Amino acid sequence: MQKTTNPFNPSATGASRDRVRIFDTTLRDGEQAPGFSMSRSQKKRIAQALAELGVDIIEAGFANASDDDFASVKAIADEIRGPTICALARCQNSDIESAGRALASAQRSRIHVFIATSDLHREHKLGMSKQQVIDAAIASVRRARDLCDEVEFSAEDAMRTDPDYLAEVMAAVIEAGATTFNVPDTVGYTTPAEMGAQITYLKQNVRDCDKAVISVHCHNDLGMAVANSLAAVAAGARQVECTLTGIGERAGNAALEEVVMALKTRSELYGVDTGIQTSRLYPTARLMSNLLGFTLARNKAVIGENAFAHEAGIHQHGMLKHRGTYEIMKPEDVGFAKSQLVLGKHSGRHALRERLSTLGHETSDTQLDEIFTRFKTLADKKREVFDNDLEALALGRDPEALGPWRIASLNCTSHLGGMSSASVKLEHDDGGSASEASIGDGPVHAVMHAIERATGCTLDISDFQVRSLGIGSDAQGLASLAVNHQGKEIRGNGVSTDIVEAAAQAALEVVNRIERMSPQTQEAPTKLQGAAR
Amino acid sequence: MQKTTNPFNPSATGASRDRVRIFDTTLRDGEQAPGFSMSRSQKKRIAQALAELGVDIIEAGFANASDDDFASVKAIADEIRGPTICALARCQNSDIESAGRALASAQRSRIHVFIATSDLHREHKLGMSKQQVIDAAIASVRRARDLCDEVEFSAEDAMRTDPDYLAEVMAAVIEAGATTFNVPDTVGYTTPAEMGAQITYLKQNVRDCDKAVISVHCHNDLGMAVANSLAAVAAGARQVECTLTGIGERAGNAALEEVVMALKTRSELYGVDTGIQTSRLYPTARLMSNLLGFTLARNKAVIGENAFAHEAGIHQHGMLKHRGTYEIMKPEDVGFAKSQLVLGKHSGRHALRERLSTLGHETSDTQLDEIFTRFKTLADKKREVFDNDLEALALGRDPEALGPWRIASLNCTSHLGGMSSASVKLEHDDGGSASEASIGDGPVHAVMHAIERATGCTLDISDFQVRSLGIGSDAQGLASLAVNHQGKEIRGNGVSTDIVEAAAQAALEVVNRIERMSPQTQEAPTKLQGAAR
Repeated sequence: MQKTTNPFNPSATGASRDRVRIFDTTLRDGEQAPGFSMSRSQKKRIAQALAELGVDIIEAGFANASDDDFASVKAIADEIRGPTICALARCQNSDIESAGRALASAQRSRIHVFIATSDLHREHKLGMSKQQVIDAAIASVRRARDLCDEVEFSAEDAMRTDPDYLAEVMAAVIEAGATTFNVPDTVGYTTPAEMGAQITYLKQNVRDCDKAVISVHCHNDLGMAVANSLAAVAAGARQVECTLTGIGERAGNAALEEVVMALKTRSELYGVDTGIQTSRLYPTARLMSNLLGFTLARNKAVIGENAFAHEAGIHQHGMLKHRGTYEIMKPEDVGFAKSQLVLGKHSGRHALRERLSTLGHETSDTQLDEIFTRFKTLADKKREVFDNDLEALALGRDPEALGPWRIASLNCTSHLGGMSSASVKLEHDDGGSASEASIGDGPVHAVMHAIERATGCTLDISDFQVRSLGIGSDAQGLASLAVNHQGKEIRGNGVSTDIVEAAAQAALEVVNRIERMSPQTQEAPTKLQGAAR
Repeated sequence: MQKTTNPFNPSATGASRDRVRIFDTTLRDGEQAPGFSMSRSQKKRIAQALAELGVDIIEAGFANASDDDFASVKAIADEIRGPTICALARCQNSDIESAGRALASAQRSRIHVFIATSDLHREHKLGMSKQQVIDAAIASVRRARDLCDEVEFSAEDAMRTDPDYLAEVMAAVIEAGATTFNVPDTVGYTTPAEMGAQITYLKQNVRDCDKAVISVHCHNDLGMAVANSLAAVAAGARQVECTLTGIGERAGNAALEEVVMALKTRSELYGVDTGIQTSRLYPTARLMSNLLGFTLARNKAVIGENAFAHEAGIHQHGMLKHRGTYEIMKPEDVGFAKSQLVLGKHSGRHALRERLSTLGHETSDTQLDEIFTRFKTLADKKREVFDNDLEALALGRDPEALGPWRIASLNCTSHLGGMSSASVKLEHDDGGSASEASIGDGPVHAVMHAIERATGCTLDISDFQVRSLGIGSDAQGLASLAVNHQGKEIRGNGVSTDIVEAAAQAALEVVNRIERMSPQTQEAPTKLQGAAR
């Protein structure tokens, strides 16, 4: 007959507040989901933003999946300072050694080895006995221990694993040297009560349990990834694996921003802290969605456009009298840009730099010069320059897709019910140029065909979207194009006040990416990319 | 030292399985969120789809908010058979009587009265004592009881209300005749453990508790709306308030499809059933997103494009050996169209009707004739007609935005770095026509300006998006435009293989909606719309 609305929570009553480590797997579990593949330069940009956000561990990829994945992990290990850099590996020497090599230059490195422990996975996928799985886990943890600073072990499908056996696995890998033991809800099947019970069971039944940090990795198939992660923390887990905006396999992972803001907003309940600079949550999520060209749902918790909107008359009335009536977080807590400060053609460099900084983009003098020049050009076209425009300016074009082809000229005409036509002149880095024209059903269709003809590159389009950045009929459009190329999804973005030009830029980014791919990659795109839990 | 992964759940062990009522508030809490406003015809279309989906109660709106809201509730009460039709009302006679009049023709009607019970809301928003709130609640429930079949009472901000007082309120409104007692987590602050404790407390402490169904209404501000709803069910709640795809105030409500599929997938745990035809979840969610022109996140649980995608090599390997390794729901369980069956110019009426039916669109012979004609026109333009194209054909144009203006001709030209120009000829239902031209930055900008000039209607654009329906460079584009008009958001959609034409259609839908609005509505747009909890 409990009366309080705050049920007991042992970890909240302790004398000192624990730290929950935020393990971000945006670049691994997130990146492997269809529609979220990233180029190496995009991964580096996001890794830098994650470091500034204050995540404790960045899972940078699965190094042995392909040469490209290896190179991405290595580039992040080389350049990013602050968070521990982690690479995923199956319980196989080739995977573990590849991870170790990719991480060699990291400030602090972690190899994350995993193997499935549930009967279903063991019997149907691995064809291994319980003892064989334990032996493989021990051998792999030991091998990994020699190659990096920290070893994390994941028991894939842990939440459908017999708790006795899971405890046995945990004890074995801790003895072998694992410093983090991860409990993934691989298929997103668990409820918070079950998750709490599982973590409690491990804490009570595993010898030397305290020698490893207990971690959770929850998927959102039934909409409970965040609640499950928090239930694990309440039961004693001290690492949460999550992704920015919740991207990941299928319905995705627990959303980092929701986990962090729940721990902060209900701090009296959970009694733990994270190292996240929460005021960077919104800018970092925006950076990612702009970089990858996907739209955040308006009603996305914490960072969606509506997250702090109070539309109903009664809500607005209440808010005017006391913010707490309908607001449990303040917009500024998550870096939500309350007012869209508008810049114009008379705004100076100082105002531009200040605003970019608020939006999460720190700029060097050289970068500012370059952005300022493009800002002036845009401000001549548009009356008002909004935050969305500034973000697009700051992001610029992906250097990996800049050239060899560039647009020199572009013309199109269109008639309702009749044909459209477009002509393009493209210049190539090798000094050549190509001009072509095409008819089409609408100007975008025509211009894409003309680009295909000029470059000889076929665009097998799987998705195309345009969205306005900011308001007004002179708003810039962000065009995002996805093309299937030899079993791989290649994406390109373009930004312009003219959406036909934006579409042409996006198409050319795709053409450039394809042309820059090495011949091997083009011929045999092995889709091992993204092992996972 | 609990060992099982399925913690105890009293309601699962009962002899007979209870029914959990699904109370859909897409048309009330969902519709009042920025970006999701709906026309009357859109509301009717969605209400019909909700009835076919099998929801128990449709909350059709807040009848006293405006004449338009009243008319929408009344239209749904007049036409929709199957679910109980519900209207929201504050504890004020004018609201309750308006709700009663709007619901008069419903097959089964429910008035949903609410008042805030938390100290914060009582003191700062209402300025009422505890007793005054109880008196108002009792009087309102009694008044409502005379005007409809069922009365629901909501204690706004219940989860921040002292449990003793909440129990007192519940006992009082049950005695006054309320048949459903709703416990809203108005600000999305609660955790599953707290929600379970609150419901358990009410069940144990309220006399005659069994005379009313306990309901929950959870918001997703901290990402826990679904888990909180399920925790309430586990503790004995037997109605869940939710919305399709989770739209609603701020971060939205619990997503209907997640709640329903969690109850079904974890049926052994919750021991309850719903009346939802789960195979209509995907088609119904698609219908709504197409109708309102918003994009579902790829990683949206249950109905997102990636929800059943298995991308990682290791996942695919496991899936080939045993689907259960990574799949806890089957795509067909939620009506997810596994293969995009492609129709072409040689496909007949029968194939078209079959496919439309699979996609959730039942058609009369007359409707099929009309759709078939447009299908043939489209199939002449495009090699392959995909499900997305068929959905757009089946939806057609919103009848409320068809005319007075129609496009007779449209031409545009565009040059990179130079000006674009567009000319339009528009015909008016009164027999007149208007032709105009404009330059612009890109063809879309130019054509919108030309339409503004021709109609004399200024378009204050707040959002513009285009997304491809289906794949290929000849895919149709769905253009969605949002315009601010006298403090109200007016939306229009257009579909065409030519995105400039699609944009022009969307602009004309907005112009038509504005022209059709009554003078009163245009002059004084009272923003009472959407009271709420």
